Amino acid sequence: MSRAHKSFVTVRFGDTDPYGIVYFVSYFRYMHRAIEEFLRAADMPPDTVFRNREEGFGLPIVSAKADFRVPAKYGDSFEVRTSVKRYGKKSVTFDFTFHAPGEEPVLADGEATIVAIGSDWQPIELPSRVRNSLKNLEARLAEG
Amino acid sequence: MSRAHKSFVTVRFGDTDPYGIVYFVSYFRYMHRAIEEFLRAADMPPDTVFRNREEGFGLPIVSAKADFRVPAKYGDSFEVRTSVKRYGKKSVTFDFTFHAPGEEPVLADGEATIVAIGSDWQPIELPSRVRNSLKNLEARLAEG
Amino acid sequence: MSRAHKSFVTVRFGDTDPYGIVYFVSYFRYMHRAIEEFLRAADMPPDTVFRNREEGFGLPIVSAKADFRVPAKYGDSFEVRTSVKRYGKKSVTFDFTFHAPGEEPVLADGEATIVAIGSDWQPIELPSRVRNSLKNLEARLAEG
Amino acid sequence: MSRAHKSFVTVRFGDTDPYGIVYFVSYFRYMHRAIEEFLRAADMPPDTVFRNREEGFGLPIVSAKADFRVPAKYGDSFEVRTSVKRYGKKSVTFDFTFHAPGEEPVLADGEATIVAIGSDWQPIELPSRVRNSLKNLEARLAEG
Repeated sequence: MSRAHKSFVTVRFGDTDPYGIVYFVSYFRYMHRAIEEFLRAADMPPDTVFRNREEGFGLPIVSAKADFRVPAKYGDSFEVRTSVKRYGKKSVTFDFTFHAPGEEPVLADGEATIVAIGSDWQPIELPSRVRNSLKNLEARLAEG
Repeated sequence: MSRAHKSFVTVRFGDTDPYGIVYFVSYFRYMHRAIEEFLRAADMPPDTVFRNREEGFGLPIVSAKADFRVPAKYGDSFEVRTSVKRYGKKSVTFDFTFHAPGEEPVLADGEATIVAIGSDWQPIELPSRVRNSLKNLEARLAEG
Repeated sequence: MSRAHKSFVTVRFGDTDPYGIVYFVSYFRYMHRAIEEFLRAADMPPDTVFRNREEGFGLPIVSAKADFRVPAKYGDSFEVRTSVKRYGKKSVTFDFTFHAPGEEPVLADGEATIVAIGSDWQPIELPSRVRNSLKNLEARLAEG
Repeated sequence: MSRAHKSFVTVRFGDTDPYGIVYFVSYFRYMHRAIEEFLRAADMPPDTVFRNREEGFGLPIVSAKADFRVPAKYGDSFEVRTSVKRYGKKSVTFDFTFHAPGEEPVLADGEATIVAIGSDWQPIELPSRVRNSLKNLEARLAEG
């Protein structure tokens, strides 16, 4: 049973709506940042896998969704818990929950799917080294 | 024959990923901007309805999702077609499709739901003047 | 009698600080957008001159500054008046003033300098076609 | 002789131009974030001083400038060194330099000035508790 990878976010100027509440768009930005941290934890610096011209693949995001449950405001900090929800042959779906640090009420949750593409932007099989690195991180997280 | 409201977006510096392709997060920003233009077209300046302290209501976004189908790049312009997908008792769900101007291939599509809240952030019935203004705009759009 | 190029901006969600006032960083974003519109008006689509790999030059911004005089808020619209302040051998400095539409009080003003670089990021002489296109636009603006 | 306060930034998606180079606007965002960290280090949570309705003051930014010397790219991390350059009767000017971690070449440097205002947006004397907290942090930084 995999545990989630944890990363942290502080709400900054420019992350809120005009009323001081976190703008829903910012959660999607935080989700991308959480993927970056997940990849780094899996020993894949994000700039070597989102586009890799030498190995001829890219990993664009093809869908994303989120629900915003409890308003957060300027100056708040969150914990973002990130895990792999699903491996497809050509894709990986990440799952995210946002929490006040150490607390259970979920502020927001969401998903984002990356798909592997070749240099012609057509879907290809997920490079095995990417899949293996993600699975290795999951195994380490499960050990705790 | 279309009932969608049309607005326009040009891809700017800061809207793309490091490879010059529109960052998925930007589409959510464009969706919010399209709601703003929809509200303006419905004679509701957005700053009078996203939070209205006098009338004691707000309209935060509680969920959003999108699929990114065709990559767009820096300098591109889109048409955003916005319509109401569904009225709930307390909510409205908007539907968006992104097109190269005048063209059919859909670059991306998505949804976003706003819910009416009172000053205590609890859901309330959608103010009738908001519902009526949206329905009036839909009627005008249907007439073409 | 004015020689400035005019473009327009509407303050959006994400452009303000948590108190609903335009975040100073947004003015720099608006300044970049104004340069893009200035270049377009000068018949140079920005994606063909900020980096031009075929012709081997780029035009990065090397300095910027601004003063923020009157607070503007969510929902406001501005006019941005853009002109060339100074041509260097290798650079161009743009000058910007932000106004409520049609009104004189300056909300903010600023400057930004682009420098021409070669493919090794070393400064080079400003490509003559860039200089000529800018000067042609200035001549057309002077005619009114 | 005051030492600078150090904070850290990682270049994220959305921080770059379409060519993968840090967008100049992002440096101003990083500067604001560095002020937030400086205030936190000075025991002033930023959301209690940028606007403080109880005590009737605010600290908006009234001017900012920067020079961009060496291009940085997606995935890079910087150290931001922040110090107070000048105290005015009603204002404080911060000074920033951006470095690759531990390295001397300055990637960018800049300044930003905050001014104290009352609830009518007119300048007022810098609240003494703000000045004292900043000076205490400077003293602690000088001790090393």
